[in-house]
Amino acid sequence: MDQYRSDLREGRLKLYALEKVLPPDDAVTLRREYIEEETGSDLSPLSSYSIPIDRIVARNCENMIGCVQVPVGVAGPVPVKGEYADTIVWLPLATTEGALVASVNRGCSAIAKAGGAEVRILRDGMTRAPVFAAGSVAHAHEVAAFAEDHLMEIQEIAESTTSHGELIGLVPYIVGTSVFLRFEFDTKDAMGMNMVTIASQKAADYIAEETGARLVALSGNMCADKKPAAINLVEGRGKTVTAGVFLPDALCKEVFKCDSASLAEVNMRKNLVGSARAGALGFNAHAANIIAALYIACGQDPAHVVEGSSCITTADLMEGGVYVAVTLPAVQVGTVGGGTGIATQAACLSLLRVAGSGDPPGANAKAFAEIVAAGVLAGELSLLGALAAQHLARAHKELGRG
Amino acid sequence: MDQYRSDLREGRLKLYALEKVLPPDDAVTLRREYIEEETGSDLSPLSSYSIPIDRIVARNCENMIGCVQVPVGVAGPVPVKGEYADTIVWLPLATTEGALVASVNRGCSAIAKAGGAEVRILRDGMTRAPVFAAGSVAHAHEVAAFAEDHLMEIQEIAESTTSHGELIGLVPYIVGTSVFLRFEFDTKDAMGMNMVTIASQKAADYIAEETGARLVALSGNMCADKKPAAINLVEGRGKTVTAGVFLPDALCKEVFKCDSASLAEVNMRKNLVGSARAGALGFNAHAANIIAALYIACGQDPAHVVEGSSCITTADLMEGGVYVAVTLPAVQVGTVGGGTGIATQAACLSLLRVAGSGDPPGANAKAFAEIVAAGVLAGELSLLGALAAQHLARAHKELGRG
Amino acid sequence: MDQYRSDLREGRLKLYALEKVLPPDDAVTLRREYIEEETGSDLSPLSSYSIPIDRIVARNCENMIGCVQVPVGVAGPVPVKGEYADTIVWLPLATTEGALVASVNRGCSAIAKAGGAEVRILRDGMTRAPVFAAGSVAHAHEVAAFAEDHLMEIQEIAESTTSHGELIGLVPYIVGTSVFLRFEFDTKDAMGMNMVTIASQKAADYIAEETGARLVALSGNMCADKKPAAINLVEGRGKTVTAGVFLPDALCKEVFKCDSASLAEVNMRKNLVGSARAGALGFNAHAANIIAALYIACGQDPAHVVEGSSCITTADLMEGGVYVAVTLPAVQVGTVGGGTGIATQAACLSLLRVAGSGDPPGANAKAFAEIVAAGVLAGELSLLGALAAQHLARAHKELGRG
Amino acid sequence: MDQYRSDLREGRLKLYALEKVLPPDDAVTLRREYIEEETGSDLSPLSSYSIPIDRIVARNCENMIGCVQVPVGVAGPVPVKGEYADTIVWLPLATTEGALVASVNRGCSAIAKAGGAEVRILRDGMTRAPVFAAGSVAHAHEVAAFAEDHLMEIQEIAESTTSHGELIGLVPYIVGTSVFLRFEFDTKDAMGMNMVTIASQKAADYIAEETGARLVALSGNMCADKKPAAINLVEGRGKTVTAGVFLPDALCKEVFKCDSASLAEVNMRKNLVGSARAGALGFNAHAANIIAALYIACGQDPAHVVEGSSCITTADLMEGGVYVAVTLPAVQVGTVGGGTGIATQAACLSLLRVAGSGDPPGANAKAFAEIVAAGVLAGELSLLGALAAQHLARAHKELGRG
Repeated sequence: MDQYRSDLREGRLKLYALEKVLPPDDAVTLRREYIEEETGSDLSPLSSYSIPIDRIVARNCENMIGCVQVPVGVAGPVPVKGEYADTIVWLPLATTEGALVASVNRGCSAIAKAGGAEVRILRDGMTRAPVFAAGSVAHAHEVAAFAEDHLMEIQEIAESTTSHGELIGLVPYIVGTSVFLRFEFDTKDAMGMNMVTIASQKAADYIAEETGARLVALSGNMCADKKPAAINLVEGRGKTVTAGVFLPDALCKEVFKCDSASLAEVNMRKNLVGSARAGALGFNAHAANIIAALYIACGQDPAHVVEGSSCITTADLMEGGVYVAVTLPAVQVGTVGGGTGIATQAACLSLLRVAGSGDPPGANAKAFAEIVAAGVLAGELSLLGALAAQHLARAHKELGRG
Repeated sequence: MDQYRSDLREGRLKLYALEKVLPPDDAVTLRREYIEEETGSDLSPLSSYSIPIDRIVARNCENMIGCVQVPVGVAGPVPVKGEYADTIVWLPLATTEGALVASVNRGCSAIAKAGGAEVRILRDGMTRAPVFAAGSVAHAHEVAAFAEDHLMEIQEIAESTTSHGELIGLVPYIVGTSVFLRFEFDTKDAMGMNMVTIASQKAADYIAEETGARLVALSGNMCADKKPAAINLVEGRGKTVTAGVFLPDALCKEVFKCDSASLAEVNMRKNLVGSARAGALGFNAHAANIIAALYIACGQDPAHVVEGSSCITTADLMEGGVYVAVTLPAVQVGTVGGGTGIATQAACLSLLRVAGSGDPPGANAKAFAEIVAAGVLAGELSLLGALAAQHLARAHKELGRG
Repeated sequence: MDQYRSDLREGRLKLYALEKVLPPDDAVTLRREYIEEETGSDLSPLSSYSIPIDRIVARNCENMIGCVQVPVGVAGPVPVKGEYADTIVWLPLATTEGALVASVNRGCSAIAKAGGAEVRILRDGMTRAPVFAAGSVAHAHEVAAFAEDHLMEIQEIAESTTSHGELIGLVPYIVGTSVFLRFEFDTKDAMGMNMVTIASQKAADYIAEETGARLVALSGNMCADKKPAAINLVEGRGKTVTAGVFLPDALCKEVFKCDSASLAEVNMRKNLVGSARAGALGFNAHAANIIAALYIACGQDPAHVVEGSSCITTADLMEGGVYVAVTLPAVQVGTVGGGTGIATQAACLSLLRVAGSGDPPGANAKAFAEIVAAGVLAGELSLLGALAAQHLARAHKELGRG
Repeated sequence: MDQYRSDLREGRLKLYALEKVLPPDDAVTLRREYIEEETGSDLSPLSSYSIPIDRIVARNCENMIGCVQVPVGVAGPVPVKGEYADTIVWLPLATTEGALVASVNRGCSAIAKAGGAEVRILRDGMTRAPVFAAGSVAHAHEVAAFAEDHLMEIQEIAESTTSHGELIGLVPYIVGTSVFLRFEFDTKDAMGMNMVTIASQKAADYIAEETGARLVALSGNMCADKKPAAINLVEGRGKTVTAGVFLPDALCKEVFKCDSASLAEVNMRKNLVGSARAGALGFNAHAANIIAALYIACGQDPAHVVEGSSCITTADLMEGGVYVAVTLPAVQVGTVGGGTGIATQAACLSLLRVAGSGDPPGANAKAFAEIVAAGVLAGELSLLGALAAQHLARAHKELGRG
């Protein structure tokens, strides 16, 4: 051990290479101690992890020094009436933001009393858009035409890299000499970014070779991954999901201490008009909060909170009540791969009954997306209700971090 | 214990009320077991937490059932040359996405070889924008004028609710009969959302009373919190930070196996042109990844990844190399409050030497924001380099989750 | 005449009904005189029109009181190398803004010296998107599915209203209970908004009847007509066109008094980076100026300048020069219908050799769109060059209105 | 004459130089004939202009060959209750789009019956934002700081170029090494783009010299002129104006044949929800139509229709009716300079009683902006009403161009 320590200090051993010479837990311990020594900090709290890390150090996290622990609260139960999830669930929310679980919980209660959240998946497809450089706009036009004319060959090449991904779309966009080809895949139960990246690479190489266009970058930002982008708001990415519930006037009063008209007015002035003037690509109260808490609990990529935040919340006054709905253009989730196999995260997925591969393939990821939408609906209902009743600040005072 | 169990089942005891009758750890255990029973799932992995939860159940997470563990890797060391952080740091990255730490690490290495990342904070202020309903556009105009004319009274009222927050700005926006007043506060070392919410409530009540406008919602989405919004991209929210580094040609070649011109071309076609055509509010490669990993490690609100994703990355070819910079309009971080006090997260902050209150107040949060910008710069450099060298897919095959 | 005058004054005759009792020119004269009398203003300059107005008062302008005259300058000649326009043209620009014609003229000169502007039409289709109200998100999903499943019936119904329009696409978008069906038509040589409105009305009535959804508005703003909208920037509306030209270093120097690298830098910092930070949906220097001047000269709908302004201009440094291109996602033009038949406007179209129906149908409108793109390229080149040479203000001083 | 003709043909005389050797009308005639000869087209309709062109060829239009005539219809009368325009006006609308005047006219009628349109100007300032290149982010920060610290010197320099413009604001924005300084001026009765361009040039030269930053372009697209940009939607450019009117239920029924609730629902689903999902920066029905028609009639820069299109229309159901309002963030108008002095356009301005300089200076341009807002309100009301009554397609069939 001391030998490794001095090797590290003297540069004979790379910090990231410790797993090659030590068992994972020892490597992590030594690395953490080395960093403590280098920085004079105490990182011992990170050492108390219980999850098996053999696969984690190989697949999820390089240069590991330990774990942070994120508290998980539950909200529910909430009845979800989707086409893939038709069930009553408890939502695991990993969060350090006081009042969030309580808020979602109140929304779940309202939904349950209203008979459940109706949910529908509107589309499903993960995208990747390489960018090519053409020599002129005429050449760019030819490259786009080539891709459209050789869809079947491209499909065969792309799908040769994956056992279960399917190429379901390919749309070319041209800006001057830049050609963007937006590939879209059905990635079944995987979130699928890696799958589509690898498949797109092979297809892109073929197109570059055949057309003489130069492949500039495998991702050309028209994907668009982890950036707020109207293309996702409009066309969707991953799963586009909507969830809605009708709240009778009495129920609104009972749970939220406000009337339906006030709730609808808050939604219009805040979520629609305010977001409009703010030049926003998200028209909701706090969808990102629920998305973040569910994603962290369930081993999803937390950077996809970005796309989750482009939710549009609507509140339609109807005879006798208000119909509140959330529409999430881009829910990018998986139940296999990524962080889903880590013990604590897998437990959260199992709580939702969506862990691992679905039957048929893709069914679990779709069910999960439906549950996410129901959770966001609960969160939106609750915050809209709280705002309508002008209780926001008070709630924070009591439950928040002050 | 059995009594509580049956009380829960029969509704005599509320699930969220367990902490009122049991010590925190027992309450969490009983709650988890109750949920396991209700759902037939095994949540035992969540039980292995080591962090003290007494304050957590009161401040950070209601209805707690345990913790998820998120692996933390380190990237660095990276020299940060800011006005608040002028130091060499190791970045703690909480992530389950393979290849991320390795990628940031490579970027840190390039920055270190180039002499460090130059960083500047361009503005600092946390916002909250209540929305009021006026009776007409003329009335709306009066309400806005009242707010501007009574800035000192409003300041006094707002600041009466907080020991260290300062009101530093107030801008009215009108849309028809909706009046949005965007309050801006210096919140020192706190991220500050709760502080500004409470302060804005009191100020808003005063304005409503004096003008006869009706306070519709304490947040009117022109804040804009956790939604992708141009108002934040343009005006900033929290800290606006920029970080840059000059990479000589030889260094670019050595670390990234590509030339400066290729790196600049990737940035132009992908981050600028691709994002433009995608209708994006973010012009970067993967800033959200780094933001998410740092925020989760350091107890920040992970929903603020949304604002972090609106980074603009630029690459200017200069004589002998390329100057790469990231500009983050809205870095909303704190070193006190929120999740910063949780043992594992506090350890990560201490690794960065920014835990707790700064001297003078605000200095730690600013130093943290500078470090975040340097980390994002490392991540951007690395991915741009990888794309330029067309290694992205290969890197994923080797390190990713396949 | 005096009788009509007193009838007008006493409300027995409606101002808009004058054409029912008088020949058009007399009606216009009487109306103008009546307004002069009512307002005490002198409108005599409006009386000096020469265009035959018989059809105008019936089709183009109700309540007509005369004409404004807009000066037309020419820029050119400019060689256009498109698939529909492969010709050398003089551009008629109707404008009152000094320096514009001179600027475009200089750009035309550069293009001519460079061998002409290469132009390609990337897509073509005019859209209209009615919005329906469904009773729930599940119902909304059914409505969208119905539309997709009955495409052939819908096509037949839509096309029954038009002799030459063809339904070429139908994409449903759902937001909560709102269902937007974006119809897309090939409208041949007509700009086509009226054609698609009428066709969409009939199709929408059918869908409403069959699904029980309520037709709320025949245009639901996902068309999107005359609003800046990312959906048009991303997907296009009308014709999506791109034009480009390679400027050798020497030519750039000769015409614009700047080097290629400066021109490319201006484009990057202004059109790309500046627009990015501005939260823009247009990444160009002044495309709207050229669009407006051409549209007004040629009898197009000038409100479509809005979509024209979302042009993306790119400048790629290449070996020995710079390739400058403009990409216009939404050029909505026609050579029949609208203002194209008015004598002065028809003359401008004939100058471009695109007046009236093309052979085959649609060829004239496509050729016109290609010419528009070439004109915008000329304008962009010239302003980029002027900025690069820092001559903008001086040019304004000499030619502008001071 | 024949001599000039052959000089033109043989390149001894430049087409744009004809005014140097001939009186304006002869120069225009010869130029038109030359183009006719070159192209084989008949441009005689353009020859029938009556406006005096001596100043036009020097100030408004280079290379002039004649004029197009645009029909002008009137809508009104409409009572405008602003702070600058408190009057009843007839709106001159230059348009070739059938149904537009009739539609606005119907809206005016509704407004008149409701007692007039309440209008308020919310801010006023014309902007120009040069972009500078700094050597590093630290240098960029210094440049921005310099500008803020030397506001008075900059003001003096900027104002030395203009007899009546006043610098009223200066906001720096940084993106990496690019520094944008957004200057804002009170330009009184002029639209002011030229004035602010010239003033900004001189100020920018000073800043460049003092800081060592390189002035890259006098306009850096954060102005933002004639591009759809959130910065204008949020912060405004030119005049930000709002107009509103309360329509009692009975009036709504009488004029629009629909009830208040339907009108409000159309506004919500179309203008708010539809625009949201379309990723729009405009939330209105057809504001651009009215803006374009008024601007062309009154000698404004028609490319500013772009900014006009970012109107937000709201409809609030209230006790006994609906309050409809339009908010126009960027109305860029002038009553002196530009095309305002051309005889026909000047007549239209005089019809509105806003021609020439106001007393005090700026009063006429402000009154004009108020009238524009009232006109847009009329247009929005009418189209919302028509959609609500599902009469849109029918209206087009009867009045449109078919």
